[in-house]
Amino acid sequence: KQITVLPGDGIGPEVVQAAEKVLRAVGETFNHEFTFQYAPIGGEAIRKHENPLPEATVEACKTADGVLLGAVGHPDFDHLPGSERPEAGLLGIRKALGLFANLRPVSGHESLNDASTLKREVIDGVDLMIVRELTGGLYFGEPKERREAGGEEEAVDTLSYRRSEIERIARQAFELAKVRRSHVTSVDKSNVLETSRLWQEVVEEVAKEFPDVTLEHMLVDNAAMQLIRDPKQFDVMVTENTFGDILSDEASMLTGSLGMLPSASIGSDGPGLYEPVHGTAPDIAGQSKANPLATIASAGMMLKYSFGMIDEAQAVENAVQAVLTEGLRTGDIAGEGEAVATTEEMTEAVVRHVK
Amino acid sequence: KQITVLPGDGIGPEVVQAAEKVLRAVGETFNHEFTFQYAPIGGEAIRKHENPLPEATVEACKTADGVLLGAVGHPDFDHLPGSERPEAGLLGIRKALGLFANLRPVSGHESLNDASTLKREVIDGVDLMIVRELTGGLYFGEPKERREAGGEEEAVDTLSYRRSEIERIARQAFELAKVRRSHVTSVDKSNVLETSRLWQEVVEEVAKEFPDVTLEHMLVDNAAMQLIRDPKQFDVMVTENTFGDILSDEASMLTGSLGMLPSASIGSDGPGLYEPVHGTAPDIAGQSKANPLATIASAGMMLKYSFGMIDEAQAVENAVQAVLTEGLRTGDIAGEGEAVATTEEMTEAVVRHVK
Ligand SMILES: CC(C)[C@H](C(=O)O)[C@@H](O)C(=O)O
Ligand SMILES: CC(C)[C@H](C(=O)O)[C@@H](O)C(=O)O
Repeated sequence: KQITVLPGDGIGPEVVQAAEKVLRAVGETFNHEFTFQYAPIGGEAIRKHENPLPEATVEACKTADGVLLGAVGHPDFDHLPGSERPEAGLLGIRKALGLFANLRPVSGHESLNDASTLKREVIDGVDLMIVRELTGGLYFGEPKERREAGGEEEAVDTLSYRRSEIERIARQAFELAKVRRSHVTSVDKSNVLETSRLWQEVVEEVAKEFPDVTLEHMLVDNAAMQLIRDPKQFDVMVTENTFGDILSDEASMLTGSLGMLPSASIGSDGPGLYEPVHGTAPDIAGQSKANPLATIASAGMMLKYSFGMIDEAQAVENAVQAVLTEGLRTGDIAGEGEAVATTEEMTEAVVRHVK
Repeated sequence: KQITVLPGDGIGPEVVQAAEKVLRAVGETFNHEFTFQYAPIGGEAIRKHENPLPEATVEACKTADGVLLGAVGHPDFDHLPGSERPEAGLLGIRKALGLFANLRPVSGHESLNDASTLKREVIDGVDLMIVRELTGGLYFGEPKERREAGGEEEAVDTLSYRRSEIERIARQAFELAKVRRSHVTSVDKSNVLETSRLWQEVVEEVAKEFPDVTLEHMLVDNAAMQLIRDPKQFDVMVTENTFGDILSDEASMLTGSLGMLPSASIGSDGPGLYEPVHGTAPDIAGQSKANPLATIASAGMMLKYSFGMIDEAQAVENAVQAVLTEGLRTGDIAGEGEAVATTEEMTEAVVRHVK
């Protein structure tokens, strides 16, 4: 299998390197050949090619079987217009590969419950999946511009959805629910937004194809609350791009650290893209302080969703659980007085368990 | 002082009645004359006048010194188009009165720390104020419609902000910070949204008028996380309408219950509108189960912000603290095995403390 790696900015290069090591260990153990090809994206690509998403990077992704991404974004480029920033590379590759569904599983690690600011009994046993629409909504709608209005400057972004865009993401959510606990919570703001009302209509229609799955609608403000009040009520949560961005970062706190959460972005065909939910953390970049587990778990999702390697994915997941049970902690998940492992130490421990 | 009361739907009537009792007690104790005039809004107004915001209601608000609102919204009207729903009444009155700033204070009640799902040490001492822009953004931008695109149905909402709209809400936030802990966190999604980039620019400009206030920018996804990770870092948080809606409901969980949170909506002139952050809770309506404290505290904000009655407002705040310290609990904030007070019992206790 051919894997294209997009390290990106900040701690991106460190964490994808960690995941590559784990994938190599999986290859050796299970007798697969994985080859890795690196390509620049985001700030790195701007520095080298004055373009956050060079055409060659898009090509390298399109021809791959799976894409592994670190993280994208750097304060050095904050002054640039939107379309020239590092983040434009990330939005661009999602769009170019047609990755309309972003799967963000959130589950507690028994041994980490103390790292969360939520009470143990609230998060113990949480197991939910946020399905975020990724190529539509407020991120991509046009117009997205500055203009004059009423004699002054105005900025505008557009939130738009077509029926077919909602249909495919809803179907994805229901398919996932079928092999989980058969419950879908569709999150919207239908008491205010027209897009949310269309969203709700279409989700209702798709629900008819899945009579065994229970569908619930929830307003986004309430969902932001319920995620903290009683996260165990959720199985699969499906929602619009921006809402999904906000809710999944919020949900990450259930596990005590953003450093734990993987994500998979998939389309209707072509390679999937796998990336940690966390950002580039430029303040700790290059110091071997980053938690590589989210990216390693993302590589595990690649094995499962893009390569259909179920046992191999399970091996990665088990290895991650095992190092946590052993008590290894990077700085972000270490409790008071606990020893702090480096990125390498954490990675080597996972590799050892995979083998 | 002339107060117009808009009871609205669900538990709305019960909680405004409670707040009226407390205001009457304040009037007696401090020798003020408060007169109350009721007007329909939301579902109630649709039932009586086939209009979620009758013209007479707008008039009754415009001529008042302050407006007290219960809550608006009812599932009976879910099938109606957006502009005919109960919520259109709420959005309409905010717009009609020019209430561009929604202030949502969140502070812990020492005695309630156990009601929160967050750990005591995380929330103990939290004291923040969310300043939500209320008459612009995604809620009001045009177009907001269904249309055809690419041979299928599309829905669209528009997020737009003019310079002057951002300026006045930013100024409001800085003014508030000046009499608090002098820290403003401006929340946006500037790595993706054009409106957020204008937002950031304008906030920076306004900040220059307040050299003693520290300004920080934070991405909305990160803010959703930080609110749970370390809420004590926040003093004043200022943000766009939709982001503010989501973040303030999330923040409500810090206090253990949405039933505790008041809000004030103010404009540049004319009366302010005061309402609890919680919704209509139709499932418990009419059963004397509702927590009246959020609405009572909202009435307290009216005393302070619309009538300049600082001592009187403090008396209401103290009374709310006192009943909590005494151990009175409505169902939403009662711990396991704790006795549950009715709406009336809670209200009478507050009245007693005010007198
Ligand atoms: C970097 C940013 C554009 C991105 C997003 O908002 O999609 C990130 O926050 C994420 O969630 O993957
Ligand atoms: C009822 C609804 C329109 C309203 C809003 O989103 O503004 C409510 O959630 C609020 O926060 O006051």
